[in-house]
Formats: sequence, C-alpha cells, structure tokens
Amino acid sequence: MKSFTIGIDYGTNSVRAIVVDCETGNEIASSVFNYPTGRQGIILDPRDHNLARQNPVDYLKGLEKTVTDALEKARSRKGFCPAKVIGLGVDTTGSTPIPVDKNNRPLALDPKFKNNPNAHAWLWKDHTSADEAVEITRIARKVRPKFLAKCGGVYSSEWFWSKVWHCLKIDSAVFNAAYSWVECADFIPAVLAGITKPEEIKRGVCPAGHKAMYCEEWGGLPDKKFLALLDRRLSSLRDRLFHKAHSADTAAGALCTVWANKLGLPTGIPIAIGAFDAHYGAIGAGISTGTLVKIIGTSTCDCIVSPKAKKLKDIPGICGIVDSSILPGYYGLEAGQSAVGDIFKWWVEVICEGDGATHARLMSTAARLKPGQSGLLALDWNNGNRTILVDPKLTGLLVGQTLHTTQAEVYRALIEATAFGARAIIERIKKHGVPITRITNCGGIAEKNPMLMQIYADITGCAMYISGSSQTCALGSAIAAAVAAGAKTGGYNSFEKAQKAMTSVKKTVYRPNPAAKKIYDKLYSLYMRLHDAFGGVKKFAELGPIMKELLDIKTVQNK
Amino acid sequence: MKSFTIGIDYGTNSVRAIVVDCETGNEIASSVFNYPTGRQGIILDPRDHNLARQNPVDYLKGLEKTVTDALEKARSRKGFCPAKVIGLGVDTTGSTPIPVDKNNRPLALDPKFKNNPNAHAWLWKDHTSADEAVEITRIARKVRPKFLAKCGGVYSSEWFWSKVWHCLKIDSAVFNAAYSWVECADFIPAVLAGITKPEEIKRGVCPAGHKAMYCEEWGGLPDKKFLALLDRRLSSLRDRLFHKAHSADTAAGALCTVWANKLGLPTGIPIAIGAFDAHYGAIGAGISTGTLVKIIGTSTCDCIVSPKAKKLKDIPGICGIVDSSILPGYYGLEAGQSAVGDIFKWWVEVICEGDGATHARLMSTAARLKPGQSGLLALDWNNGNRTILVDPKLTGLLVGQTLHTTQAEVYRALIEATAFGARAIIERIKKHGVPITRITNCGGIAEKNPMLMQIYADITGCAMYISGSSQTCALGSAIAAAVAAGAKTGGYNSFEKAQKAMTSVKKTVYRPNPAAKKIYDKLYSLYMRLHDAFGGVKKFAELGPIMKELLDIKTVQNK
Repeated sequence: MKSFTIGIDYGTNSVRAIVVDCETGNEIASSVFNYPTGRQGIILDPRDHNLARQNPVDYLKGLEKTVTDALEKARSRKGFCPAKVIGLGVDTTGSTPIPVDKNNRPLALDPKFKNNPNAHAWLWKDHTSADEAVEITRIARKVRPKFLAKCGGVYSSEWFWSKVWHCLKIDSAVFNAAYSWVECADFIPAVLAGITKPEEIKRGVCPAGHKAMYCEEWGGLPDKKFLALLDRRLSSLRDRLFHKAHSADTAAGALCTVWANKLGLPTGIPIAIGAFDAHYGAIGAGISTGTLVKIIGTSTCDCIVSPKAKKLKDIPGICGIVDSSILPGYYGLEAGQSAVGDIFKWWVEVICEGDGATHARLMSTAARLKPGQSGLLALDWNNGNRTILVDPKLTGLLVGQTLHTTQAEVYRALIEATAFGARAIIERIKKHGVPITRITNCGGIAEKNPMLMQIYADITGCAMYISGSSQTCALGSAIAAAVAAGAKTGGYNSFEKAQKAMTSVKKTVYRPNPAAKKIYDKLYSLYMRLHDAFGGVKKFAELGPIMKELLDIKTVQNK
Repeated sequence: MKSFTIGIDYGTNSVRAIVVDCETGNEIASSVFNYPTGRQGIILDPRDHNLARQNPVDYLKGLEKTVTDALEKARSRKGFCPAKVIGLGVDTTGSTPIPVDKNNRPLALDPKFKNNPNAHAWLWKDHTSADEAVEITRIARKVRPKFLAKCGGVYSSEWFWSKVWHCLKIDSAVFNAAYSWVECADFIPAVLAGITKPEEIKRGVCPAGHKAMYCEEWGGLPDKKFLALLDRRLSSLRDRLFHKAHSADTAAGALCTVWANKLGLPTGIPIAIGAFDAHYGAIGAGISTGTLVKIIGTSTCDCIVSPKAKKLKDIPGICGIVDSSILPGYYGLEAGQSAVGDIFKWWVEVICEGDGATHARLMSTAARLKPGQSGLLALDWNNGNRTILVDPKLTGLLVGQTLHTTQAEVYRALIEATAFGARAIIERIKKHGVPITRITNCGGIAEKNPMLMQIYADITGCAMYISGSSQTCALGSAIAAAVAAGAKTGGYNSFEKAQKAMTSVKKTVYRPNPAAKKIYDKLYSLYMRLHDAFGGVKKFAELGPIMKELLDIKTVQNK
C-alpha cells in the first residue's frame, strides 16, 4: 500500500506544505500561503530598519490553510487518500524565537500584546540585538571560550540569547509575561502535537545547538552562572526553557485530535522534530559524508555532515558544529555566505538599474568571457562575511577596472567572487579533516544560471550537482516524517534509507574544466591575499582596519 | 592705439584661432577647424588600437582656415583691423613629432608616403612605442640616471625618443627619408616664419625639456654615446635635430610674406616660440609662484612654476621639471592624472549606460551626500597613474560597497578619488619646497561642476579659482605673442605684465569647508594606505603586485 507524508516549510514570507509519496519522494500536491501581516509577512518599524518580526497567528492560519489545501489537491491523484498520510514534518527559519505563556500560547495572541512587536516572533533577520551579541561574545570570550568555539568565534545578533536579552532590556512587560521562549521550529510541531506546557515541548538540537549555545558536553544550555553575568533574569529563565534537545530521529509528538480534525488527517500520526529549513533542506538534497549541500539564494547556507565515529575538532570560522543537528549520528556543520544572489541583484537592479531582461543579457554576455579576461577581481563582502571571517562589518571591494570595464564584466567578477568565497569555506573545512568531494546545489539560482554553476565547478574544483527537487526543505521535512513513522507504517527506519529512496539529483552535472581551473587557481590566490589583507589578518595590519574605519565615518556622517 | 594678437591652439581633434585684445585679454573673435583626416582627425589602425597619427596637411589647412575666418569675424568689432595684429602664438599637443625632409616639408606631403601613417604626425596619445619606452628607461637607469630624474623616473611611450626609435625599427624607409623630426609645437611657428631648413627652426624648451630629455646642464639632448646604446642611427640623427632650445621669451621668427598674404596679416610680425597646450594654458590661466594651474579634462595636467633663484632638487614622481619651460626664469613643473573626466564618463556612460541627463541627475544626487557618508573609497587609477607613481599598469579600485550602494554614491566616490589623487601630487610637490597656496582650474568640468570644485577645495585644503577665459591655451599663446611683440608695438616686455593685464579668474571661488576637510583628512589617510599598498610600496609587498598579476592574466586570456 502506498504511503505519504507531509512536509511543511516555513519561509521568510510564506509557508508551503507538500504531500510526498514515500516510495519515490515525488511531490504529488503543494500549497503556499503568504503571511498576511506586515510587509510581505514581516512586521517592520519605519524608525528602526533592524527590526523584523512576524505574527504567530499567520503561522497557525498558514498551517491549516496549506495542509488542507494540499490534501484537497492530492485527492485527485490516483492512490492517494488522507488516511495514507503516515506523518508530518516541519522546518522553519531560525533563530526565530517566540515568547509564550504558561500554556504555550504566543503572547501575541493576548489582546494586551496584540500590537506590540516585541510580543511577536523575532524573525531570524531581526538585527535589533547587535549590542547584546557583542556583549555575549565579549563575556563568553573571557569566561566560556568553549561556547564560542562551536559557533565560529562570534555570537550573532540573529541568535536566540541576543534576542531574548534585548527583549528583557527594552520591554520588561513582554519579558516578564513570557513564561518561556520557543523557537518557531519547535513551536509548530508542539502545536500539532497538542502540547500545552512549554516544559513538555520536545526541542530540536538543530535550533538549540546552532543558535542557543546548547551542547550535551557542557550540560545543555549555557550554565546559570554564565547567564547571570548577562542578567540574572536570564539565569532564572533557563529553568523554564529546556534541559535536553533532540535529534531528527526523535518524534516531537503525535498529531492531536484537535489538529487532526482541523486538517482532516488521522489522529496520532507522528510529527517529526522541527529543524531549520537549511538543515532539512540538506536532507532533502541528499546530504551524506563527502557531499556538501549548498543552498544558494539571496545568501547561501552550506551544510556538511561528518560521522561521529571520527572525532571532530572545532573549526575556526565555521559558524556551527553541532552533534546530530542535521543527520542523527553525524556532526552537523553549517557555514554560509552573507550575500550571493543579493550581490548580483544589487549590481543588476541598483547599479545597472536593470530588470529580469538585464539579468539575462548580462548573463549571456558574461558567459562569453574567459576566466581572468576582464582583469577584475572582487571580494564578496557587500553584506559582510559570515564564514570564515565571521565579521558583519566587512564590505565589498572591486579591483582591476579600467575605462573600458563593462557591466557584464563586473557581473561575472561578482559571481566569481562568491565562488572564491565558497572555495575559502570548502578549503577551511577540508583542512580540518572533513572530506568534500561533491556539492549538491539547491535554489533557483542553481537551477537557472548554468554559467554560475560552471564557474563554481571551475573555481572550487568540485563537481556541481543540482538537487532533483526544487522544494528540498519541504521534502526534507517529509523525509523526517517518514523516518518518524518508521518502516512498519510505510516509512523508513533510517535517514540513509529514506534519502536513498526519496531524494535525487538532476541529470546535468557541472564538472571542473581543467584549463579554467588553472587560471582560477591563480586568481584565487590573489583573492586570498585581498581576503587576508582586508579581513584583518595580522601581517597586513595597516589595511585590515580600512573597511571598519570607513564604516565608522559612514555611521557618524549618517547621523 | 589698440593692439591685438592671435593665439592658435592645436588640440587633439581640432585647431582653434582666437583674436585677443592686448589691453584686456578679451577674445574678440574665434574660429575652429575640425581635422578632416581619419576619425575625428585621428588616423587609426583597426589592427592596433595603440596607433594614433595625424595628417600634417590638416594642420596647415586648419591654420589658414581658422586665422582668416577669425580675422573676418573680428573685422566687425569696433577698433579692429588686421594691421593692428602685432604677433602670433601657437600651442599644440605633444609629444607629437613629425618626420620632415631637408626642406622642413613633412614626409606625409610626399606622394610616396601619403598613405603611410608612419610618415604622418605621431600624435601624443600614440602608444605603439611601449617597448621602446621600457628599454629607454632601463638603459637610462643604468647609464644616465640623471635623464630620468628630470622626468619622474620613467620615460614614456608617448614621448619623442620612444616614437622616433619605434619608427626606425618598424619602417626604415620613413626613418631614412626623414632628414629631421620636428615637434608639432615647433613646426607650425617655423612654417609661419617661412623657415625651410630644419636646422634653422627655433625649438621650444617646453617640448625639448619635457619630452626629449633636453637639458642645458648636460649639453642639450641626450649625448650621442647614450643614443648609440639605443641605436647608432639615433646617434647620427642627433646632429640633424637641434643643439639649443629656447624659452617663451624668444621669438620663433617673423611672419613670412607667403603666410602673411595667405592670412591677410602684416609681414614681419613676431611669432612666439611654440609650446604645449597645457603650458601656454597655464600662462593663460595666470600661473605664478604659489598658484598651481590645473587643466581638468578627460585627464588632467597640473602646471607649477618655481623661481630659478631658488635651487630646486628633482622631485621623485613628478614627470617633468624643466628650466623655463613655462615661464622664462622659472622652473616649469608638470604633473598629471591619467584619467579624471574619463573616469566619470566611464561610470555614467559605460556602467550606468546613461547620457548627459544621467550626469546631471547623479551630480545633483551626489551633491546632497556628506563626505564619507557612502562609506566608499576609490583609487583613481582606471587609466594607470601618471603622477606620482608613474605606472600605466595600475588599475581602478573601489572599496566599501554594500547591497545598498547607489550609482550616485559611486559617482561621488570617483570624484573624491580624483581629488585625493590631486592632493597626493600637491603634497609631493610641497614637500620638496615648492609652495602651493591656490589652484586655478581650467576646462569644462571646472566650469560646469560646482560640486566637484567644492570637493577639490575640501580635500586639497586649497582655494579653487576658475580661469576667467575658457580658452586658456589659445589665450596663453596670444599672451606669448604679445610678449614677443614687446611694449613698443603695443605688447608687453614681460610675461608678468602681460598676464596681469590679460588674464583673470571668475568671481566664484570655492574655499575649503573646515568640517568637510576634517572628514576628508581621515579619508585621505585611508586613500594613501591603499595608494601605497597597491602602488607597490615595499612594506605591502604581497599586495603591490596584485593589479599587475591581474593584467598579466588578462593579457594572456585576451590573446
């Protein structure tokens, strides 16, 4: 008998549910819901461009709407009926913590807090907590360097503790009313499972380990003594968070009657533990030892796994190394570039004042250029550097322009810059003993820009594969659901088996061209000289601070 | 009785004659002639973009056409008649040497050579002689370092000996047929004076000293032993060139009957010695001790004088220091930036794909920015660096861009970059004991872009004046003619007196804003760090070669 799972993927502007055939991984139906609150689903503050919140009500509406709609569509497919759905999986953005009351009800649902953005979900890209992040980094560096070693050396303003601490500082009414804080990735599965006490929520190790400094090794979340150095109220909050986080082979719970009725699904089917989109995306793209999964969008996220059997040391500059955060039994490594698609978009839309047609024109002109032919070289830091320098205060650089340099030449140089940045990450990881032999790419850019993929192959020296599914995150959630259901109900007993059956890559593979690789090796060595000089490596002490000094002046002059 | 002189200015694409009132310096009539040969007056070679030649026939046609036409127009002005013209002056581009026969007839006029570009005038921007320039620099560095000390340390492919040597190598028929080679600036006055023997031409010290390594100190042109190290035929040529060069207070001759009749002017009036456009332009703009004259166009030329009474040492990186090359009795110093207007044009027209309206829009948007507000910093090397690094193989650099950087922000950063480059030149000259207290600017950009002038004032810390005449080169030639004529015929006995009467500055003066200056001082120190790092100063040994290595790769890949 055929069986199906549902993968639910909470993105930045919308949520998507897909119904997946467990045997093949094929998506038989899908539905998307755009969050209605704010601008494209994001609550903004015109006085503070760092603020980005979301309405948890949108999450719940979207959950019901997309699942019922996808099921409705699936009904027309031969062999499907809702009774054959054996599990659900959820992935979300993160760190996106939500303040909840004693009954696991988001404060935003309370009429008292309805219009207070601080009571809503603190979206991953909220940067209001920059000061707190700096302070956490400073204190941890002094008293708990091990906390930083696992997250690349710098704690981010995008992460859990920065956000919660910032709320404590600026809105004690919300902080005091919050019994606990729950990552969106943990919150949705808990809702589906009908869990009404925050203490009973099964939290995922993916959000916990990558964003909240959770590590079994040191007893879970940061110790109370450390938290008290930030604020003693954070230290008390720790008791109302969680003590143990779980990997993706643990179910978050079983579908409760209320939601089973709402969705038209069987009561009691398992709900997989929640995880971040990139991580379930990596599973949906077929991540395994030696295969790096690269999710290329406005920015990129690189996911890698390394078997736990092989002891792995901390890797400087890699922003997360967490036991079982992607695949159970493997260390999960996360790296990323702060801007990729965004850099091309900036060049084409802001500088060239172009549109989609301009993108296409530049792409075709740039494709006819040979490596190094333009004499240009760029750093891909227009939005800072997430990995391996972990420094948001770095900026872009372009060198080599003449009076004849064209739009298309710069366009290509920017693509190459992102590829050099990707190679720097790969080489850092490989240098620390984690093998990378191939790369599977996900996202629209990977599917639509063959020139970019070929450049990435030529520069990294790795074969570039494209994920078979274009909804790898939702597919990964559906795979986690199939594993949570297990073989006995039509799922799988392991991720390895589930991935083998349910994931694929496209036929087109981009393999390195040795002649191009040779030129790019030279250019990469020049890129790394600029990287080290402007990234602040010691021997270039006079150049290292240049980008920072420019930003300091900019800040003053913009006041 | 009123008196008048005629200034004739040979530019890159056209020649202009103006009739000037000696009492006031007012231009009462003018006429322009576009060279008809080639593309915009330049003979090109589709197979070699370095080649740029001109047809001497165009020079002669233009001479007759513009002078007669200007005189015709002047007739309608009260108080004017051709009999009141007391002298003529000529300035030209350079180094633009012309091969001539024994009778001072350009070889290009010989039917045998009519279609041979090598027999035509070798226009200043002809770069076919790059290899010869490198070789001259190499040999001089070894055996005659003093030759290089006067021209900034590097002999250029744009200069006299590189061009003549290249001709010798590639076209011995032309080289052998050439009895002598005459700079355009010397050739036109000689034609007007009816001089038919090259030996009898009075050559100007301006072309000789700045382009042909002429210096009285070492006995004129480079010695025969040195020239024989290049090629013994150059050594023999030396005898057919000249032994003494003259400053602007010597007349080149008197108007011959043939040309007096052609032009409708009195026979026998003096013709001032010829000089380069920038140098007579500096005189027309009122150059004097402490006043730097900046001619801002596609590139810029900076002219400075320093009294001979004060001994002046060589200044590293300054491309020319020549006794009396601008004003008699003063050292003439020439510096310059390889691209200024051209950089803005590149940004607006090539990258932003804009036109005049775009220029205007970017100018008005950029004018609203505060210093440092964009966080951007650029190097102005898109066409190499002429002064003070004297390195054509340098390229542009832009740093500080984010995902929000706009067209107008980059436009302003490029203007600032050219101002920082200007300041680097000023500081180098001042450091060697030549005072600079104010700057008089010439050229369309200076007249039409108040934002640029204010930025230049704020960055250099000097008051910026705009020349009263917009034809300073032709005016300078007319002033030289008035001095050649002398006070007894209605002219002047010295350049000081002539300049006082005949030159002016506009009312608008741009004075440094102290608050802006303070920010720009910080940015300038960052600019100089980039300048030294990428310009190859020793302590940044790893970065110095980056631009060169990119160019090497580019060259290979463009083959």
